Amino acid sequence: MNIGRLITFEGGEGAGKSTQARLLADALEPHTGEVVRTREPGGTHSAEAVRRLLVEGDTGRWQPVTEVLLHYAARSEHVHDLIRPALSRGAWIVCDRFADSTLAYQGYGLGVDHQLIAEIDRLVLQGLCPDLTFVLDLPAELGLARATRRAGGEERYESMPLGLHQRLRNGFLEIAAAHPDRCVVIDATADPESVHREIWDATAKRFGLPV
Amino acid sequence: MNIGRLITFEGGEGAGKSTQARLLADALEPHTGEVVRTREPGGTHSAEAVRRLLVEGDTGRWQPVTEVLLHYAARSEHVHDLIRPALSRGAWIVCDRFADSTLAYQGYGLGVDHQLIAEIDRLVLQGLCPDLTFVLDLPAELGLARATRRAGGEERYESMPLGLHQRLRNGFLEIAAAHPDRCVVIDATADPESVHREIWDATAKRFGLPV
Repeated sequence: MNIGRLITFEGGEGAGKSTQARLLADALEPHTGEVVRTREPGGTHSAEAVRRLLVEGDTGRWQPVTEVLLHYAARSEHVHDLIRPALSRGAWIVCDRFADSTLAYQGYGLGVDHQLIAEIDRLVLQGLCPDLTFVLDLPAELGLARATRRAGGEERYESMPLGLHQRLRNGFLEIAAAHPDRCVVIDATADPESVHREIWDATAKRFGLPV
Repeated sequence: MNIGRLITFEGGEGAGKSTQARLLADALEPHTGEVVRTREPGGTHSAEAVRRLLVEGDTGRWQPVTEVLLHYAARSEHVHDLIRPALSRGAWIVCDRFADSTLAYQGYGLGVDHQLIAEIDRLVLQGLCPDLTFVLDLPAELGLARATRRAGGEERYESMPLGLHQRLRNGFLEIAAAHPDRCVVIDATADPESVHREIWDATAKRFGLPV
């Protein structure tokens, strides 16, 4: 039985997901006990090996359906080795990206059939679903401008054309609209502290924590 | 439309699949024109990057369902970049391992639900199926003794326990029994030239080539 909670952050490049995940994890800990902060693709040793195949190299390196399979391969490891054990022992998990990113990037962005992604999700996750998802929303141009200021060799997705990033922004908004009980859309153009306050308010309200 | 043919070799470690694939490809060429010899996991540049995750490292490196996803990720690339184009231009393809190996190793060997594998197969391959499959059969102990004489760092599957190799031998035989129109079981304990003659006779009969 899962007695913990899974909170995910979703959105395009440069939306501030990592920053907000850290701020939320720090704010949760005094109220909830153990908080596990993690990310996808990756999050465990074995899943990070798959991550490297996905975030490095040429933009056209993989067929889109192959990317779906690789993302779910990494997710399968992450869920088995980290997420399910943490939920079982009552931890709160704050995860930077999860399954919605696959539907947004590979489905809305790269055109993989949404039903195919949904079926692989069902086969691999067997019903596991976040308790709360924040979709950090901002114009694709602004997010890319923020993201390209970062260092590192993980630019494969950032390097894809602007049109793809616009489709996936739209995708995240459609996913949020389809799951209004789970998803909260946050305007990510504001300053990080204001964005955090909005996220905290929504989290506290959802789980009955002090505002 | 596929105007070529796909012939696959299946079986446990050390059954002689690579040798027999080479002998069959050489024998086909005078009769069929272009013959493409390839292998799984791998067969293309991108798929070989996934192969390395599967054939190297500790035996317990991946969850069994993750292995299914990684094998189908590699297969997705192999089919898109090599197999479908070759079939379209009329080539005959001789492939050392294909989808039956995933059902045998991860399904029969490692206990992944067979229906899950069948659904992922359907989603990724969209009905692509070999025209003819040779299952090279021999006792697991004999195959492993042959395989461990080989050099190289790709021993992850060979290192798995004997019980697994016995289950997958049984799996290959069950797969062959379930698809009698496609699969031919060959006794692989005989000498390579005798095994090749049996394979050639079956191939010639199936496709109307001179014996």
